[in-house]
Amino acid sequence: MSTIYSAELLTVGTEILMGQIVNTNAAFLAKELAFLGITSHYQTVVGDNHDRLVATLRTALSRSDCVIMTGGLGPTADDISMACAAEAAGVRLVWDEECERAISTYFTSLGRTPTHNNYKQAMMPEGAIVLPNHNGTAPGAIITTAFEGRTRYIILLPGPPSENQLMFNEAVRPFLERHTHSRLNTTFVRMIGIGESEAETRLADLIENQENPTIAPYASEGEVMFRITQRMDNEDDPDLRGELLEVVTERLGAFIYEVGTRSLPEVVKDLLTERHWQVSFAESCTAGLVAATFADLPGVSSVLAGGIVSYADSVKEKLLNVPRRTLEECGAVSAETAEAMAAGCRQATGSQISVAVTGVAGPDGGSDDKPVGLVYISVADADGFLTRKFYFRGTRAKIRRIATLNAFNLLRMRLQEN
Amino acid sequence: MSTIYSAELLTVGTEILMGQIVNTNAAFLAKELAFLGITSHYQTVVGDNHDRLVATLRTALSRSDCVIMTGGLGPTADDISMACAAEAAGVRLVWDEECERAISTYFTSLGRTPTHNNYKQAMMPEGAIVLPNHNGTAPGAIITTAFEGRTRYIILLPGPPSENQLMFNEAVRPFLERHTHSRLNTTFVRMIGIGESEAETRLADLIENQENPTIAPYASEGEVMFRITQRMDNEDDPDLRGELLEVVTERLGAFIYEVGTRSLPEVVKDLLTERHWQVSFAESCTAGLVAATFADLPGVSSVLAGGIVSYADSVKEKLLNVPRRTLEECGAVSAETAEAMAAGCRQATGSQISVAVTGVAGPDGGSDDKPVGLVYISVADADGFLTRKFYFRGTRAKIRRIATLNAFNLLRMRLQEN
Repeated sequence: MSTIYSAELLTVGTEILMGQIVNTNAAFLAKELAFLGITSHYQTVVGDNHDRLVATLRTALSRSDCVIMTGGLGPTADDISMACAAEAAGVRLVWDEECERAISTYFTSLGRTPTHNNYKQAMMPEGAIVLPNHNGTAPGAIITTAFEGRTRYIILLPGPPSENQLMFNEAVRPFLERHTHSRLNTTFVRMIGIGESEAETRLADLIENQENPTIAPYASEGEVMFRITQRMDNEDDPDLRGELLEVVTERLGAFIYEVGTRSLPEVVKDLLTERHWQVSFAESCTAGLVAATFADLPGVSSVLAGGIVSYADSVKEKLLNVPRRTLEECGAVSAETAEAMAAGCRQATGSQISVAVTGVAGPDGGSDDKPVGLVYISVADADGFLTRKFYFRGTRAKIRRIATLNAFNLLRMRLQEN
Repeated sequence: MSTIYSAELLTVGTEILMGQIVNTNAAFLAKELAFLGITSHYQTVVGDNHDRLVATLRTALSRSDCVIMTGGLGPTADDISMACAAEAAGVRLVWDEECERAISTYFTSLGRTPTHNNYKQAMMPEGAIVLPNHNGTAPGAIITTAFEGRTRYIILLPGPPSENQLMFNEAVRPFLERHTHSRLNTTFVRMIGIGESEAETRLADLIENQENPTIAPYASEGEVMFRITQRMDNEDDPDLRGELLEVVTERLGAFIYEVGTRSLPEVVKDLLTERHWQVSFAESCTAGLVAATFADLPGVSSVLAGGIVSYADSVKEKLLNVPRRTLEECGAVSAETAEAMAAGCRQATGSQISVAVTGVAGPDGGSDDKPVGLVYISVADADGFLTRKFYFRGTRAKIRRIATLNAFNLLRMRLQEN
């Protein structure tokens, strides 16, 4: 087993060369390599062309311990990544029975018959570790080879981001962890309600004077995340992350919602579970995004009753019982309507707590009085309301996403206060 | 003046190698090159390192007529792109008085004084065309050089996307247009309900025998897209895309939902607008994702009434009027419940048409009888129901996304059939 110090990314795909899709896989993988402490000096994109692919792969193998190739694993004649990788590594492609079975099973479960093409995906480089694809048909692979006497690895991953990320998380990260000699211990501190540059200014001295552990900000839409990382070269190195965390908490504790890996919806889910409560959502401008985001979490059924998307005012009246007078006098985007929506949703669904979101997501519909980005969020429970007014900036999609995040935050605050 | 047939992108930036930002500039520039009919076989990302940058630049000049370098034009010592480009082209950096004046003016207009560093940006490769930056301080440049007797161009653009795009639009596109002689005309054909490999098999002869126009598949989760592209060398070349499209339509017409750029929700929105109808959504496993996806489109308020997220069975009963007997006898995941949900949602919201989704998104909750991935979708209008049973594969998130796509497709089918 050989240590991996450096890795580079090789993305295969005409769609990227033509600018039809953005190379988000590269960003995902690059960040993961950085977390693992693996240096990455190059990223390359090439099309599905045999000569260029093999040449690029050889160049990559000449300068990096590991090459992560993404894309070109599909069933069509265009998809030649596996064959090119085998060629660059000097091994044959051989029939893999397990892959064949997985492909048959996949298609049978869909009620479809695999075509001859599909079975092309069962041809694997001889001696490679086969990586099962739990989000599609194309298996990945890890090939061990040598370049001028040094061990090199070629890791092949599928192009669709959901398949790429799942396979990386399930199989590639553990493999890379076993092939690095120092280990990075990481603590995430997640905050909401403070801007990134404001947070950085307050921690500037820690960021500048860092050595080990280090602290670095990670931009994340609508929230701020800091990563505290300590490189551990020996098993008995003392863990110094706690001390640094204490200083951060002293300065920014009011904004911290999680020290760990839980997302804001996960924190909310745990708080609801603790008190055996169900939540429901009344959504106007977010139109289901809060409920859908919450239901991304597996096992929410014990804490999620449901919700009402009240896009039309008639639905606010009929299903959420918002008085017509409130809508006429205060408008659909107002604290009064938000509270009436939250209370009505609690009533309609029978949940213990309810969150309502109403606002102007744009691009049209704004006025001097109620500009695009104005959003009211209200949380209702048996004790009353917690209601806030926000002004968000950005596109329609961004305003809706940030409103969703803040709906969870207000819910968290309410659940933690009483 | 030498014709530019091929160009490649060289992005300079540690942020991209570390995965801190996504390389959206590359996608923007790649798409522009494709529109201009300039072939692009490579994209490379390197850090701000002299040796690696010069070597990568030389490799690029050996294989492409033009290299577009993005990033590394800032005022700090780290920013070495201009110096490396000059070195690779074999020219000196010289002081550019116009740049100096532009920098002074920029800072004066902000009420700030430029530092010594800022004037570094006035050093330009000798003989280069200087490109003014109307969104920042760093000027760009176009260097003409030669590689093994052939004319080559190095185009340098700043990294911030707003500066990059403005400079490209103002100065680089006109330059490239003067150096190309053909243009690409493109038509997109979008399908759903057929797998990628199945679709390709049916068009295999067209894909294999293509010259001009060409046809190529683009993978997209849950749907299949083909791109028909014709290279036009003269203004009066006949447009042959229509003939090819006819053959594609003959073979795969039943799956085509769009010839053009509209997404499936956009097609649905237009169909609803045509008949002045509003839609509503009753969602169980998708839990608001269908409504939220639809509301991503600006201006949906005329066609979206709202929806009900009926995660708990009590909400299905209470708000959607699903008979308890149906839930008990057929189960929450059944055609009967889906139809009752759709009808109940239409009733509750007063919309002309309604779509219901109920299924097992997993990872838990599946059984032999009703496995993870089983989803029923039903569309209800005044004339009755269109109901379908699906088996989807993948993670919870993927099952919910593909169910959402198919909800829109069933809605489209219903709207187009009556």
